[in-house]
Amino acid sequence: MIKKDRLPNPYNKRVRILLEELRKRSLTGIIVFQPENRRYLSGFKPGDPQLNESSGFLIVGEGQLILGTDPRFEGEAQTQARGYTPFIYRKGLEASWPEIADRLTKWRSLVFEGFSVTYHTYRRFRRLIRSVNKDISFRPTYQIVEEMRSRKDKKEIEAIKHSLRITEEAFSQVCKALRPGKTEKQIAWELKKTIFQKGGEDLAFDPIVASGPNAALPHAEPSDREIRRGEPILFDFGSKWKGYCSDLSRTVCLGPPSDRFKEVYSLVRLAQLKAEKGIRAGLTSADGDALARSVIDKAGYGKYFKHSLGHGVGLATHELPSISPVKPVPLASDMVITIEPGIYLPGWGGVRLENMAVIREKSVRVLNKENNFYDFS
Amino acid sequence: MIKKDRLPNPYNKRVRILLEELRKRSLTGIIVFQPENRRYLSGFKPGDPQLNESSGFLIVGEGQLILGTDPRFEGEAQTQARGYTPFIYRKGLEASWPEIADRLTKWRSLVFEGFSVTYHTYRRFRRLIRSVNKDISFRPTYQIVEEMRSRKDKKEIEAIKHSLRITEEAFSQVCKALRPGKTEKQIAWELKKTIFQKGGEDLAFDPIVASGPNAALPHAEPSDREIRRGEPILFDFGSKWKGYCSDLSRTVCLGPPSDRFKEVYSLVRLAQLKAEKGIRAGLTSADGDALARSVIDKAGYGKYFKHSLGHGVGLATHELPSISPVKPVPLASDMVITIEPGIYLPGWGGVRLENMAVIREKSVRVLNKENNFYDFS
Repeated sequence: MIKKDRLPNPYNKRVRILLEELRKRSLTGIIVFQPENRRYLSGFKPGDPQLNESSGFLIVGEGQLILGTDPRFEGEAQTQARGYTPFIYRKGLEASWPEIADRLTKWRSLVFEGFSVTYHTYRRFRRLIRSVNKDISFRPTYQIVEEMRSRKDKKEIEAIKHSLRITEEAFSQVCKALRPGKTEKQIAWELKKTIFQKGGEDLAFDPIVASGPNAALPHAEPSDREIRRGEPILFDFGSKWKGYCSDLSRTVCLGPPSDRFKEVYSLVRLAQLKAEKGIRAGLTSADGDALARSVIDKAGYGKYFKHSLGHGVGLATHELPSISPVKPVPLASDMVITIEPGIYLPGWGGVRLENMAVIREKSVRVLNKENNFYDFS
Repeated sequence: MIKKDRLPNPYNKRVRILLEELRKRSLTGIIVFQPENRRYLSGFKPGDPQLNESSGFLIVGEGQLILGTDPRFEGEAQTQARGYTPFIYRKGLEASWPEIADRLTKWRSLVFEGFSVTYHTYRRFRRLIRSVNKDISFRPTYQIVEEMRSRKDKKEIEAIKHSLRITEEAFSQVCKALRPGKTEKQIAWELKKTIFQKGGEDLAFDPIVASGPNAALPHAEPSDREIRRGEPILFDFGSKWKGYCSDLSRTVCLGPPSDRFKEVYSLVRLAQLKAEKGIRAGLTSADGDALARSVIDKAGYGKYFKHSLGHGVGLATHELPSISPVKPVPLASDMVITIEPGIYLPGWGGVRLENMAVIREKSVRVLNKENNFYDFS
C-alpha cells in the first residue's frame, strides 16, 4: 500500500486521481519520464537538460511509488519527492535494475508516455521490464497526466497569476523605454533582465521582439533590426514563478499608426474580445477557436491568422488544451488558457494580442491586469 | 542529384560526409529531427521549444534534400536552409504528406535517430512512409550525425572560443563582486546578466552557484542560501555564441580557506592537470578519464568523484565524446571537450574545476585564457 501519511499534498491527491484513471483503464501502473509530469506528481524539480538526458522517472502504480534517478540528483530525490521510494542507480541503470525489479513481478501492465519517451528509452525499458516479468504489457499511453494538469487548483492559479504579474510589469517598464533605433535584440534583453529583476525565477521561453516586416513571422527570432516609428512591434514573452509559466503578447506602434495598423489591430482585438466573452466550460476547444476566427474570417483576413487561438499554460508554456480548429476537446472549468488571435501580412508585419484566462462555468476570468489596448474606434 | 551549387558551405561538405556514411551502411537516407543535427546539416536554426513540439525535420539521401516544417517557420526555411527543398505542411503533416511522398517511393531504407525521436513520432512517420512505400525499411540509427559533430572545423572552434571568452569575462566580473551575504540566486542572476551584457546570445544552460554543503550536490540549483567566508563556492555555467556553447566550472573560497579546502582543491587541480597533459588523439575516452580519476582514487577520494571527467561541447552543451570510464571510444583530433574532475563531500561541500580543450595529435590545447587557479603548494 502507498504510505499515504508520507506523501504530502498536493501530490497525494494527484496520485490518487492518477491511480483511479489507471484503474478505469485496467492498467497496473505508469512510468513517467516527462519532466513536468514528474514534478506534478512528486515535487521532483530537476528538468531534463537535453532531449537525450533524463533526470529520472517515476513509477506509479497500486502499492508502488518509485522515483528513479542517478546519483547526481540523490539530494533532490530525498528532499523534493517525499513519499516516493528513491531508486538511485549508482552502478548505471542496467546494473542497478535488480534493486527494484522485484516490485514489478506481479504487474500485468505498465504504460509509458508515447509523446515523451524516445524510441531508445522505450526499447531499453521494455527490455528491463520484461527481464523480470515476461508477461507484462508495456505500451504507450497519451496524456493521462497532461489531461490532469490542464485543470488547475487554487495554488497553481495563484502561481500563474504571480508569474503573469511579473511579465506584465516587465512589459510595462520596457515599453516606456522604447525608442526608435533600439534593436529587437536589445529590447529582448531588456525584457529578460526585467523579468529577473522583478523576481521571475526563469523565462518561460525566449522572448520574441519582431518589428516591421519581421512581425509577419509568428515566431521571429529577435534580430539586429532597429525599430522605427509607424510600424508594428510585436512582443511575445513570459516568466516562470514556482515552476509556473505566463505568456503575454502585445503589439505596439511608436508614433502615429497607419490606417492598416488601426484596421488590423482593431480586428485582432475584436476577435480576442469575442473569445473572452464567449469561452466557457462545456464549449469545445474548436468552438472556442471559432469565436475569434470567425471575426477575422469575415473581415477577409482568415488566411493570415496562421495558428491556433490559444493553448493551456501551467508547468509548461504550451500544454493542454489546445484551442484550435482541429481535434476538439471539451473545455472545463479551472483550465488556464491563452487567447491570442493574430494577423500576419507578409512584407508589412503582424499584430498578435494575447491574454491569459481561467475558464469558469459561465465565462472566462481574464488573468491580465494590464488591459491597456489601443482603442481606435 | 543534389544541386551542389546551391547548398552553401559548410553544409555542402557535411551533407557529403553524411551521404558517404549512409552509403557505407547501405542506407538510402536519413530523417533528422534532432534540432542541433538539423542546424548542423542545413543552417536551419529554430530549436524545439518543448520535447513534444518539433520545428521540423530534414530528409537527407541520395538525390534528396528536404526540410519539412510548418508554416510558422516558412521564412526561416527559405532564408536559413538554402539548398534544401522546403516542404511546408500547410494542411497539417498527414494531409500535406503526398506533396513529398513520391520522392521516397524508390528508397530501400530510411533511418531515424533512435535517441531523439519519440515513440509517437516513430509510429507516425513509419505509417506515413509506408503509406507510399510498403517495402521501405524504417529503423533506428544512433549518433551518425552526432559523431560527425564531435570533430570541429576551424569556424566552430572559433565560435566556441568566443563563447568561452564571454563566459570567462562574466566569471571574472562576478567574482570580483562576491561578498558574504549575497545569495546563490543573486549571484546566478549576476552571471546571467553579465553573459548577455558581454554579448552572449544565450545561456548554454542554467547557471549553478552552490555554496557550502550545497556544493556537495554536483547539479545543485541556486538557492536563497547566503554565501559565507571559508566555504567552497562552486560555479558552473556557460554562454552561447553563434549557436555554440561554452562550459566553465570554478570553485572559490572567500577569506582564508580551511585545510580541507586546500587539500581537496589541490587534488582536483592535480587531477585536471594530469588529464590536460595526457589526453591526446588515439587514447580512448576511458583512458582519458582514468588519467584524472587515478589521481583522485589514489588519494582515497575516488568514491566522491561521482561523474565522468568530461564531455564534448559544440552546438549542444553535452555532446560526444563522453570522457568516462564506460563505453570507451577513440579520441580524435579536433574534438572539443571539457576536463572537469570534482570531489563532493556530503555535508561539507565540493570542488569542481572545469576547463575546455581541443584535442590534437600529441596533446590537448586548453581553450581557457583565465587559468587563475589557487596554488596552495
